[in-house]
Amino acid sequence: MEKHEEMGSEVAAQNEANQELLEEQVENDLTTALDRKDRDAVTTLLEEAHPIDVAIALEEVSDSDILFLNSLVTAEQLAEIVEQAEEDLQIRIMKLLDLDRILAVFQFMSKDDIVDILGNMPVNRRKELLKLMKSGDQTVIRNLLGYSETSAGGIMTTEFISMRNTLTVSQALEKVKEIAPKTEEINILYITNEKKQLVGTVSLRELLVAQNYDTLQDIMEDNVISVEPETDQEDVARLVSKYDLHAIPVVNKRMGIIGIITVDDIIDVIEEENTEDMLKLGGVNKEEDVDSSALESVHMRLPWLLVNLVTAFLASATVFMFEDTISQVVALAASMPIVAGMGGNAATQTLAVVIRGIAIGDIKLHGNEKRILKSIFVGFMNGMVCGILAAFVVSYMYGNPYLGVIILVAMVANMMIAAFVGFVIPVVLKACHADPAVASSIFITTFTDVCGFFIFLGLAKISLPYLIR
Amino acid sequence: MEKHEEMGSEVAAQNEANQELLEEQVENDLTTALDRKDRDAVTTLLEEAHPIDVAIALEEVSDSDILFLNSLVTAEQLAEIVEQAEEDLQIRIMKLLDLDRILAVFQFMSKDDIVDILGNMPVNRRKELLKLMKSGDQTVIRNLLGYSETSAGGIMTTEFISMRNTLTVSQALEKVKEIAPKTEEINILYITNEKKQLVGTVSLRELLVAQNYDTLQDIMEDNVISVEPETDQEDVARLVSKYDLHAIPVVNKRMGIIGIITVDDIIDVIEEENTEDMLKLGGVNKEEDVDSSALESVHMRLPWLLVNLVTAFLASATVFMFEDTISQVVALAASMPIVAGMGGNAATQTLAVVIRGIAIGDIKLHGNEKRILKSIFVGFMNGMVCGILAAFVVSYMYGNPYLGVIILVAMVANMMIAAFVGFVIPVVLKACHADPAVASSIFITTFTDVCGFFIFLGLAKISLPYLIR
Repeated sequence: MEKHEEMGSEVAAQNEANQELLEEQVENDLTTALDRKDRDAVTTLLEEAHPIDVAIALEEVSDSDILFLNSLVTAEQLAEIVEQAEEDLQIRIMKLLDLDRILAVFQFMSKDDIVDILGNMPVNRRKELLKLMKSGDQTVIRNLLGYSETSAGGIMTTEFISMRNTLTVSQALEKVKEIAPKTEEINILYITNEKKQLVGTVSLRELLVAQNYDTLQDIMEDNVISVEPETDQEDVARLVSKYDLHAIPVVNKRMGIIGIITVDDIIDVIEEENTEDMLKLGGVNKEEDVDSSALESVHMRLPWLLVNLVTAFLASATVFMFEDTISQVVALAASMPIVAGMGGNAATQTLAVVIRGIAIGDIKLHGNEKRILKSIFVGFMNGMVCGILAAFVVSYMYGNPYLGVIILVAMVANMMIAAFVGFVIPVVLKACHADPAVASSIFITTFTDVCGFFIFLGLAKISLPYLIR
Repeated sequence: MEKHEEMGSEVAAQNEANQELLEEQVENDLTTALDRKDRDAVTTLLEEAHPIDVAIALEEVSDSDILFLNSLVTAEQLAEIVEQAEEDLQIRIMKLLDLDRILAVFQFMSKDDIVDILGNMPVNRRKELLKLMKSGDQTVIRNLLGYSETSAGGIMTTEFISMRNTLTVSQALEKVKEIAPKTEEINILYITNEKKQLVGTVSLRELLVAQNYDTLQDIMEDNVISVEPETDQEDVARLVSKYDLHAIPVVNKRMGIIGIITVDDIIDVIEEENTEDMLKLGGVNKEEDVDSSALESVHMRLPWLLVNLVTAFLASATVFMFEDTISQVVALAASMPIVAGMGGNAATQTLAVVIRGIAIGDIKLHGNEKRILKSIFVGFMNGMVCGILAAFVVSYMYGNPYLGVIILVAMVANMMIAAFVGFVIPVVLKACHADPAVASSIFITTFTDVCGFFIFLGLAKISLPYLIR
């Protein structure tokens, strides 16, 4: 077993390296071919490569290379590449194309993707394009543009198949064959009643194994999980993940189906929300990634650092309150970072568990009393173990057992406070409909710094006679 | 637009609250009905509720209630509930059932789920069960048990549909109808050649719109993305997410297909890996969740805290080296936490961006020179802005401009170092095939503590004459 796993990890590493190589080769070959304006080579590469790898390669090439590629591909091919491109590249490509070409490309894209692209265009250009579209498409897109980008309405697609519950299986199969070439998601049919309300779903699989004379009403699953267009994308993702869905319908107040959200879009939502939570825990605005420019990075991190600078001065002022005490026992200056730092770590640990627990739906807004008490107890236990060890070391280093006792008491108290605030603050933020992750470790650790310094130096001050001797 | 979004968030909150209520009601009703041993009520609830909600409810009930429920449900119903249950509950239910009942339940579960359950059983019980199974099933399960739990082989299911490329569309449709009721994933057919090698895929949708006399070879997509059984689940998830797949095939060295991984299992992997990264960044072992017992939590957090305690003493010893300097200028003790703390925050920010970048595949192992330089430049810029502000405040607070200059230089230097180590350490760990997230903020912030104290106090020591005046 051990052996197997070891070999496995080598093979996996090899495989991963190959995968990376493959992706990079497409990138290099395409860049070279475009550079040489080699018509044949580009065409061959486009046939073999996945649109996503083409999109990645295009990030590195010049505008004239993009125009050259545009002249070689059909609108359908270009649509696939644009759908896979990052936002920045999409914006760049769209700037280079004329309106007619954009409309041709839009023919092969789903409405939700078109809406995303339009959302990133200058208002005038967007208006011009909308005017040139068919009036049916115009209405759909204008509606979609109205939803928040992070709501179910903002991420849904309006292409799905709905059928009346009175149809027979063979009628439904006929219709599916007709519609299939034009529709993105076809594995699930959404079944409606005479009032056009969503009443059930039938999967293609169920359709294929059912008897031809059955009606959709007979074979449908009538326990449908749906969301409203205003539902937050995070809650949509939670439902899809919990119930292992491949798609989730979006319904209006009258239970009419207005769109669906497919699982591949849900994966993007999950990754996006996770990135956001992780970066916020680290004190970075969510939009930053490794390829943000230096100035963008500064812009996204500096506000957090400045907030922290203010709170750091609070900690500093706390220390300065005890100037006299420290000047008499300098060992205090050397020991106080231990108390503050351990409190900060205990708080960060609790924060990470709680923010994650909220994100995956394990922590609800009420009934957390027991968990909070448990969290404080964990802080107490960890504080005792670390505190006793620290007490021994400090007593020995500075030859002063009283200093040891003070550090033990201060550490236990600070780690209990840390466990309490680390749990309660994100939950309270969630209850106020704020993002629990804004309680980033930066704020909480500065808070525990202040508490740690104050408790430790305060105790030292009142027991000064024993410390000086 | 503003108005629309505002209303949206209210509706969403309401919707979320309803959802929570609904889930809790199932839980309460079922618990009550089981408690009263109310046969009819339990049966009705089981018909209406989703298996996952039943599973959640069962976590709260006694063993005798579980046995009562077991007596009321078919093996198929129980299988659905067990599949959705958390590991702990699965183990508990399996302990309560006799071997025959377990075998009956297994009839309705997919092989990968059976393997997970067997993996958690006492070895003897597992052996007994395996012996009682059909020999074909035995072989499949013994093979699956051989793969690491976090590899493609460990999470794949062996239920999929493969067909020869020479079949016609109408023949394939016939076969699909036959196999459909027995197979989990049926939306994609895996196409093999005469050597039983995987050569393409056909979706049900393509099958339905194709001409009856076409062969599968004619209509298949031949650019198949596959993984090997040893591939790490994180890399599998990256591919599925990148290429928007609904399932990915697992092939052996001879390109024979041995299993598939479906997108709902991939979502679980993504959530698991994200939880792991987030908790590690916070300094907690990955297995902890909000419902771990207090002692488990202590056990999972204490090792990190103890490591940090050792490094905290390193920081403390650094401060103590400058005991003389501090005793002459106590303002130093009050200012040093600012330098150390800001460095720690800058490091945590960089870490969060880099660990996330590695996780989603934006950061590769080589070619990062520019990004590292950019990271250091960001550290420099942020250090300058925060440093100048801090210098003014400190100069004013302690009436000593030299102290201001020292804090500026120390802060800039420390934040540049922080930006460098925050970037390089996780990448180096990844290159050594270690988990980049073990470079948790705990280690790195202690490192920046030591650097911050050393640079600040060292500068103070050599410019002591100016500081005392």
